[in-house]
Amino acid sequence: MESSTQNVAVLGLGPMGRALAAAFGPGVTVWNRTPGKADGLEATIAPSPSDAVAAADIVVTCLIDYPAVRRTLAAADLGGRTLINLTSGTPDQARELAAWAADRGVPYLDGAILTPTPMIGTPSGTILFSGDPAVHATVAPTLAVLGGRILHLGPDPARASAYDVALLDVFATATNGLLHGFALAAAEGIAPPDFAAFAAGIGALLPEMATRFGGRLADGRHPGDRSTIGSAASGIAHVTAAARARGLDTGMLDAARAVIDRAVAEGHGHEGLSRLAVMWGRTG
Amino acid sequence: MESSTQNVAVLGLGPMGRALAAAFGPGVTVWNRTPGKADGLEATIAPSPSDAVAAADIVVTCLIDYPAVRRTLAAADLGGRTLINLTSGTPDQARELAAWAADRGVPYLDGAILTPTPMIGTPSGTILFSGDPAVHATVAPTLAVLGGRILHLGPDPARASAYDVALLDVFATATNGLLHGFALAAAEGIAPPDFAAFAAGIGALLPEMATRFGGRLADGRHPGDRSTIGSAASGIAHVTAAARARGLDTGMLDAARAVIDRAVAEGHGHEGLSRLAVMWGRTG
Repeated sequence: MESSTQNVAVLGLGPMGRALAAAFGPGVTVWNRTPGKADGLEATIAPSPSDAVAAADIVVTCLIDYPAVRRTLAAADLGGRTLINLTSGTPDQARELAAWAADRGVPYLDGAILTPTPMIGTPSGTILFSGDPAVHATVAPTLAVLGGRILHLGPDPARASAYDVALLDVFATATNGLLHGFALAAAEGIAPPDFAAFAAGIGALLPEMATRFGGRLADGRHPGDRSTIGSAASGIAHVTAAARARGLDTGMLDAARAVIDRAVAEGHGHEGLSRLAVMWGRTG
Repeated sequence: MESSTQNVAVLGLGPMGRALAAAFGPGVTVWNRTPGKADGLEATIAPSPSDAVAAADIVVTCLIDYPAVRRTLAAADLGGRTLINLTSGTPDQARELAAWAADRGVPYLDGAILTPTPMIGTPSGTILFSGDPAVHATVAPTLAVLGGRILHLGPDPARASAYDVALLDVFATATNGLLHGFALAAAEGIAPPDFAAFAAGIGALLPEMATRFGGRLADGRHPGDRSTIGSAASGIAHVTAAARARGLDTGMLDAARAVIDRAVAEGHGHEGLSRLAVMWGRTG
């Protein structure tokens, strides 16, 4: 099948669904539960999900959550269509939806969008896909319009979502840590732009740390040659005391400190910080 | 006083104290509670803190904690000496030690070392000082050997420590967030180096975010043009569910999520993430 012959329907016109529909171009068919969301889009508006699916070779869902995907598709005839789900969720939800599609004989890919809406359709647009490589090969030419970094991560349909949640984990905690630092600095009378200049320098350490931690975790060796868990224990104790003295919420610090202190108690104080990923990864 | 005439004593020879003593050069006098820590250092070893202080114009303390500074100096005659404390602690401890020194008429500066020991004495060595500017001017030529970025942050002796704890706050939470992301990725079967490549990209966002948040917090305006608190609420819910499904500790995520959800409940869901620093900064 030539890419030019693949018709696309986008179900769900939140900000991301609209960006996707715009990137697919004026031949796209769109549907949204509440009307008016297609205003300003060059697209054919379908009156129902079934009509949108009927008009398409590739059905792209970008809805509020995974249950909404099943509700939306419940009455549609997906025969002969490929389902590509870009709704945000968890790896378990991706696995369940993949099984649902498999039960119906529907070729399925799950995807995770890593860039904000303005990047969709640009060279820096990054979307991860996973699922049957043969299905990906069929739709790849059509998906290429979504951005310059359209990656396929292999046959496990949950893999894209697994990357998504683990990266969101880093983003959410690092961002809130940065914001908590601003709060503590402000409580001590430091002007936000003055603190920002130094905080940016701390942030700039993270990419190298990510690379180094990746290597150490792969090796299973955690040398304390850069900084040690013991020194982290002493540092976070000072931070927590300072935040508490100013009456700030110390929930994130307390949770991190508990894991650091447990690592020290178990004899890992002389080891490097990468060991803490093993501690965080412990299931209980 | 010429810098060449200022004699320095370093009290405390942990890894950082040793690095400081080495940077001051062979004319330095050193003392440590337990013997043997000066091995390999070109320095005069004093038999007691009082002897070290007696030999010096500038007394640099780099001890285990602030109480140890007072214990160590209890019997010494600080008359005519300048005390520079580089022991890690909290802003309140810096304020208390500054008051202790003021009671005794001892010129005092408090400092915070932002770089690891190998950077001391190099162009990238960064140390923040705060306290009486006149005192800083007197010792600045001698302190210059400690590194290329020796900064004075003004008269408040707690200011250096305030920067230190707020930056350590960012470092500790961002690092543990990164490590938690590795743990979640590993639980989903993603090899650490594969995850590192993407996690480094998330880390690379932090410096720009720090600068942007600094500006917005200074303006008191939190537009949601990049990403919104509402979208963060949805994202962290997925991360938490995924981590919980794998049996991981969700303490940091739960604490961040509680603040995000409170911001949404109070009507800030359409605003940008910088608003969360205001939420974290709330006391009560």
